[in-house]
Amino acid sequence: MTINKKDILGIAELSRDEITSILDTASIMKRIIQSGDKKTNYLRGKTVLILFYENSTRTRVSFELAAKYMGADTININVSVSSVAKGETLVDTGKTLNSMGADVIVIRHNMSGAPHLLAKHVNASVINAGDGMHEHPTQALLDMFTIREYYKTLSGLKVAIIGDIYHSRVARSNIIGLAKMGAKPVIYGPATLIPPEIEKMGAKIAPTINDALYQADVVMGLRMQLERQKNALFPSKSEYARFFGINQVNLSLAKKDALWMHPGPVNRGVEMTSGVIDGFNSVINEQVTNGVAVRMALLYLLAGRENMKVSRHASGTVDIPVQEACV
Amino acid sequence: MTINKKDILGIAELSRDEITSILDTASIMKRIIQSGDKKTNYLRGKTVLILFYENSTRTRVSFELAAKYMGADTININVSVSSVAKGETLVDTGKTLNSMGADVIVIRHNMSGAPHLLAKHVNASVINAGDGMHEHPTQALLDMFTIREYYKTLSGLKVAIIGDIYHSRVARSNIIGLAKMGAKPVIYGPATLIPPEIEKMGAKIAPTINDALYQADVVMGLRMQLERQKNALFPSKSEYARFFGINQVNLSLAKKDALWMHPGPVNRGVEMTSGVIDGFNSVINEQVTNGVAVRMALLYLLAGRENMKVSRHASGTVDIPVQEACV
Amino acid sequence: MTINKKDILGIAELSRDEITSILDTASIMKRIIQSGDKKTNYLRGKTVLILFYENSTRTRVSFELAAKYMGADTININVSVSSVAKGETLVDTGKTLNSMGADVIVIRHNMSGAPHLLAKHVNASVINAGDGMHEHPTQALLDMFTIREYYKTLSGLKVAIIGDIYHSRVARSNIIGLAKMGAKPVIYGPATLIPPEIEKMGAKIAPTINDALYQADVVMGLRMQLERQKNALFPSKSEYARFFGINQVNLSLAKKDALWMHPGPVNRGVEMTSGVIDGFNSVINEQVTNGVAVRMALLYLLAGRENMKVSRHASGTVDIPVQEACV
Repeated sequence: MTINKKDILGIAELSRDEITSILDTASIMKRIIQSGDKKTNYLRGKTVLILFYENSTRTRVSFELAAKYMGADTININVSVSSVAKGETLVDTGKTLNSMGADVIVIRHNMSGAPHLLAKHVNASVINAGDGMHEHPTQALLDMFTIREYYKTLSGLKVAIIGDIYHSRVARSNIIGLAKMGAKPVIYGPATLIPPEIEKMGAKIAPTINDALYQADVVMGLRMQLERQKNALFPSKSEYARFFGINQVNLSLAKKDALWMHPGPVNRGVEMTSGVIDGFNSVINEQVTNGVAVRMALLYLLAGRENMKVSRHASGTVDIPVQEACV
Repeated sequence: MTINKKDILGIAELSRDEITSILDTASIMKRIIQSGDKKTNYLRGKTVLILFYENSTRTRVSFELAAKYMGADTININVSVSSVAKGETLVDTGKTLNSMGADVIVIRHNMSGAPHLLAKHVNASVINAGDGMHEHPTQALLDMFTIREYYKTLSGLKVAIIGDIYHSRVARSNIIGLAKMGAKPVIYGPATLIPPEIEKMGAKIAPTINDALYQADVVMGLRMQLERQKNALFPSKSEYARFFGINQVNLSLAKKDALWMHPGPVNRGVEMTSGVIDGFNSVINEQVTNGVAVRMALLYLLAGRENMKVSRHASGTVDIPVQEACV
Repeated sequence: MTINKKDILGIAELSRDEITSILDTASIMKRIIQSGDKKTNYLRGKTVLILFYENSTRTRVSFELAAKYMGADTININVSVSSVAKGETLVDTGKTLNSMGADVIVIRHNMSGAPHLLAKHVNASVINAGDGMHEHPTQALLDMFTIREYYKTLSGLKVAIIGDIYHSRVARSNIIGLAKMGAKPVIYGPATLIPPEIEKMGAKIAPTINDALYQADVVMGLRMQLERQKNALFPSKSEYARFFGINQVNLSLAKKDALWMHPGPVNRGVEMTSGVIDGFNSVINEQVTNGVAVRMALLYLLAGRENMKVSRHASGTVDIPVQEACV
């Protein structure tokens, strides 16, 4: 299992085979998380810098734990809080971190394309942890991992994605990835928040929420960004819940065993009712575990030590190499 | 030395034997702190998340160092700074952290009972690092450890606790613990800030500061919360120093070798004069070391690896097992 | 290679031999940074606390990575953000950190002399990471390291330092160190921002920027503190660029192979033009790597484990001892 990339900038840049390699590697990593001993040495002696220009505790902690579980040294740099980086360009900051010994830079930035710019100027591997309204590839990978774990494949599955598609990098990355892997993403949301080009990415726009949910194998909510409420195009919380909320009534249209997903954190009673969030088909907490596994897999594939590569037999069994003695 | 608990929520929930086990284990941990090499592997592969809804550098650093000395991976989540957790319920945050692989969650919260609520919803062990005006069990454990280390026992000792009892979770936890271990807590403070139910917890209310201090084996100041000054019930700084301050004059009523304690940081010249803080009988800095030791002990007892348990001989000598090779 | 010091408080306190030892040790550390595996065990079991009373992501991250590469446990305490330390004196904070097991405290403080005060009251080694307008010894050491790496010596080199000397602890530490090592620092800057006592430290004041740059072996810019703009003595950004900025035109007066340096982050187009910053003779990114190496060297010399000392043969070759098995 390998990928032929320095960076993970978007799902658009990944081939079907690369996505498969990442998800296969993540399966192994998930077993490490679930074992009693999560600490490995695959990235011992490597440095992972987590450079966030937007606040995000959840994604930050997921990456930081993934890096620690892989044995890397990690440092957080929260630029929204930090004063030093002020006035310093992104490229200069990147070069500085590179010179300090960064092997991987995980970047979240409010500007679409920032990770790509950074990647061009540093030797370190760059992982996009969300850039503007563009992509959030690790979220899409963990979502695809979660779906594949249950259905064994992504091919042919109807995946309903409900909410504010326009502002959602999660939706964009998922649509591109799901279409690439042969699934059928169907979207529904406020009419003003459905970008017309979405169909070119491989999604079908459903005329009603019922059409989106009907016979779906997977139902995915999106986080409503409450800070966007000032925008006149944006429905109020109660309108959102009424017209775009996922509840046990409209979910009855989906397949009986459909997975209920959400990237979290959920606004309870807005995007989803508590009955759905905590319901039997909900895999929201499973997604969180899978997020750590997928991020461990990416760190391993980009920066893992050569002599510690894991391998998968044709038979489907997996070798996790004995960790080097005394490292 | 074991305790039969998933969580450490309060001194009220601990038996006399459990408190003794914790203090015995902390003695071993203190020797590790004082050795040249503080790093152990007892919690290697385990994850300790420190989730603080109130700012506290001192307690946060103490827990973080304890976890690092035990070999755990640690992550701080400062929710008062973090924006992501906004709107997310405590239980949802807890479930997310649990899904990321948390073995122990250390929580400080301004709401009494928050750690108990969290503990019910996660598999991870929960340690209460202070909840509202309720309990601060690790502070009481380190205080009891400090006293026991000098007197070899807690039984029969007169412990004077001086200050704002009403708002103090430190006082509450200490009173419950000291009474349980056979000591005699005696309290004194501003009349409006002595909760009537305190006597049911095992404390005696002294009529004057001199009565409280008279023949005391231990004198414990409490931090005056300056931010409470706006409260009309609350004395001013100079009134506090004059009527409730501990100084070398009133301390002469206590036993000659009495221990002088304070949970820190001290407002110099308010709760205690500098002569007391830096005096020969002061163990304020010792309390800080003991705080790390007690927290190491709790992490070890809740999440230590089975095959690395320390043991204590009937003779009183202690085995610290040779750490596993190559972990 | 050893130094006979508990603390690193300023270049003024270091002998010529000690500076040489530090730079020699840093050469070894640089090779570790550039190897595939940066993690060592030289400070395993040791604790490095990074206590910053001023914001500085760059210096903070450099120290934190240096400590992690040496195998130490590290904790950041950002006192400008932290509320707990409020009202606590520096000495009390230091004693608390010492009691928690600190082996090294790295301190940045807006008050000149703060590190010296701290050092007197703790057993831990103290490293000054910048104190007021006084010294920034690790910056000067990394600058001297960078120069020595290119020229093999510092002796006899003309080093032009251009900018606001008055407010610059970087300039002060560099001037003291360069003079001590036999180099010839020449300074130029706004007349109101040249402290008269600077000549006693060993610097020559150049009458014009051209005199400063003429035949220089090294040209060093200083960061213009934009927050000082409100000060009437201070030139505006464009005045600064015009009269004190380093550009390819005035640099043609320096030696052809002169090194172009800046402590970073640079205000592009103010202290230096982009052509200089990114030019062939610029070693600005190299300085960043060297900063980590110098800080690793200091941590090693102050707190490295006795049985893991590196040694340098008379022949000039260096032994890096095989790391202990299984630590």
